[in-house]
Amino acid sequence: MLPVLQAETIILDLVQPLSGQEDVEVLNSPDVRGRILAAPVSSNLDFPHWDNSAMDGYAVRFADVSSCNAEHPAVLEVVEEIPAGYQPQRTIGRGQAARILTGSMMPDGADTVVMQEETKREGTRLFIFSSPESPQAFVRHQGAFYQAGNPLLMPGIALNAPEIAVLAAAQCTQVPVYRRLRVGILSTGSELVRLEQPLQPGHIVDSNQYALAALVRQAGAIPQMLGIVPDDREAIQEAIGSILPEVDIVLSSGGVSVGDYDYVEQILSTMGAEIQIKSVAIKPGKPLTVATFKQPHFVLYFGLPGNPVSALVSFWRFVRPAIKKMSGLARGYLPEFVQAVTQNELRAGGKRETYLWGTLHLSENECEFELATGSHSSGNLINLAGTNALAVVPVGERAIGPGSVVRVLRM
Amino acid sequence: MLPVLQAETIILDLVQPLSGQEDVEVLNSPDVRGRILAAPVSSNLDFPHWDNSAMDGYAVRFADVSSCNAEHPAVLEVVEEIPAGYQPQRTIGRGQAARILTGSMMPDGADTVVMQEETKREGTRLFIFSSPESPQAFVRHQGAFYQAGNPLLMPGIALNAPEIAVLAAAQCTQVPVYRRLRVGILSTGSELVRLEQPLQPGHIVDSNQYALAALVRQAGAIPQMLGIVPDDREAIQEAIGSILPEVDIVLSSGGVSVGDYDYVEQILSTMGAEIQIKSVAIKPGKPLTVATFKQPHFVLYFGLPGNPVSALVSFWRFVRPAIKKMSGLARGYLPEFVQAVTQNELRAGGKRETYLWGTLHLSENECEFELATGSHSSGNLINLAGTNALAVVPVGERAIGPGSVVRVLRM
Repeated sequence: MLPVLQAETIILDLVQPLSGQEDVEVLNSPDVRGRILAAPVSSNLDFPHWDNSAMDGYAVRFADVSSCNAEHPAVLEVVEEIPAGYQPQRTIGRGQAARILTGSMMPDGADTVVMQEETKREGTRLFIFSSPESPQAFVRHQGAFYQAGNPLLMPGIALNAPEIAVLAAAQCTQVPVYRRLRVGILSTGSELVRLEQPLQPGHIVDSNQYALAALVRQAGAIPQMLGIVPDDREAIQEAIGSILPEVDIVLSSGGVSVGDYDYVEQILSTMGAEIQIKSVAIKPGKPLTVATFKQPHFVLYFGLPGNPVSALVSFWRFVRPAIKKMSGLARGYLPEFVQAVTQNELRAGGKRETYLWGTLHLSENECEFELATGSHSSGNLINLAGTNALAVVPVGERAIGPGSVVRVLRM
Repeated sequence: MLPVLQAETIILDLVQPLSGQEDVEVLNSPDVRGRILAAPVSSNLDFPHWDNSAMDGYAVRFADVSSCNAEHPAVLEVVEEIPAGYQPQRTIGRGQAARILTGSMMPDGADTVVMQEETKREGTRLFIFSSPESPQAFVRHQGAFYQAGNPLLMPGIALNAPEIAVLAAAQCTQVPVYRRLRVGILSTGSELVRLEQPLQPGHIVDSNQYALAALVRQAGAIPQMLGIVPDDREAIQEAIGSILPEVDIVLSSGGVSVGDYDYVEQILSTMGAEIQIKSVAIKPGKPLTVATFKQPHFVLYFGLPGNPVSALVSFWRFVRPAIKKMSGLARGYLPEFVQAVTQNELRAGGKRETYLWGTLHLSENECEFELATGSHSSGNLINLAGTNALAVVPVGERAIGPGSVVRVLRM
């Protein structure tokens, strides 16, 4: 029984991220939401593209306004209006100014913007009642935020709305991203039926295949569904063998405990996989098999417990970080823990790191964890609905009182 | 200039959630990821479906084992093996036992499970060396976690992996969910071009339409793209008028400041909208117009600032919660704030609640905010890439020192 952190380290050290050469596809920038950048991106454009105004006001020559004040206003002639999107046609000479709006191009000759609030306009005559602090006031300079040709985005970052905005602003129309991981999913167990099949006495629905598929999609990967495989060595071996060439990761559930029909570990060894982890000191989720195949290519195998709650907790704690790292994410693939105040007493056996499900409330002024009502038996599943987080009781602790600060893993 | 919390309250009070009657579609349970449940769901099945074993061991009659111990073991005859998925055929009589595995159905006659570890087996003879604490030990009873006909899931909850698992386990094949919201998106500004268009002097790419579409999709809604509309009253009015019948929310960006071409508020009034908010004491994002249309049906209108950073911050702070609430989410639609230790000094003007972008690190033992390097001018956009959170400097504060705890809004 490995400690949880040691199991995490072993798993993440085993992960071989996708290749920045072979595992890349090129997408249109607006379509990259949720993907991981696979190579540096740079732009041919400076940002800002040209000197522009940070304010609505007037573009002037600093020398013309450097000594004005309310009693002795500068008086200038407005020679041009520069709305957004307009290329100035005039050069601002001594005693001249141009009406300019936020973001509009600075005209040649002008070096300073005076805020509208400091001025009065009469026809083409402009009175300026306050001197700007210095030349270049309220001018955003070309290239101040980014200079063409430099790296704009670095590989390994997730591409979401901010990055899509940057790619669009810099006119990077296409970007290289890592392909999506393919994750094979199978459930072992002769008691299992599909959601829509008639339920005979002793049977239960294989909820894992549906829940794991949802989690794999949510993690940005593509589930490849193998369905239910009965507790039969040959059938399980054939199923695993059939999916290996097509996937990067396999998730099986069931068959990893010590029951008479728990074959998965033996089968993996027979098939040439290297068994890396056999069980972890976590509750729920102790029977976790992690193995690696080298043939036909590297595949990371997770033999999850068959129990639905155990399978989901194992996914959140161990599988999701592995998917994220293998997908090419350079940072931020570790599980995300938040400190929260528990509203309820949290109980555990003390021998294994215990994960109790409930609801994390993150509002203006509080960060609270509310334990799900009902049984926290791993045989229960029903009260997992509506929860969004798992509170952690460390090894060695048997009870954490209400009001205490605990670590909470977000689902 | 409304305080941020007041603006939030006004907006969320304006939101009319989708109707549980009219705005519903029925989906197959495995396909509901990310959707909101629109009506209570119940199941015809108890959970567990029948009495079953919580352990690998033997199903026995408590009376037969209540006084055994290591020196005087009970000796029983194993009359049946009950693997997973098998309906027991025998009734357990006095002196009899059945081999049983975790999750397997309890046989008639038996009332207790003895753990495998407390037994020794010789052929069909079973020695039991320790008495269970009480009858019913290690038996999970039919209906212990859920009784058929009761509400299983309540409307207004988000459906993700845990709920999909529960729906599958309970054989709820189809569930009613709220339809996706439709969100119209347009950008106003004569300086704007599309990502792939040639850039003339004075022009900039309208990054907002792409970023807002990504954010709308991420929030579970469907973007309806109107593209770029020039700074022209009639064109803007026509664009807004054309999209109103098709959408629940409109997001425009640009045209809401006090510049000569900032028409949006006047146009909305002309069109019969009620202006609810004109500006908010937030930085970036002060010029925010919120309005409501009653015709042809209720539409919530957000006139976002044209500046890309301001538009995105306004979305995260005000629009996303409104989309979530309108989508039917009963709880958890408020913005999610985390307390984190800032690594850097955070500066603000003191007059408006200030949002500074950076990276939130949520690892095992720390919760840290790292300010993005580079300019936090709202004219910058470049350094928003790679960030995932906004640290909040409250009104009245001008600097928060490194090491201080701050509120952080996750993007």
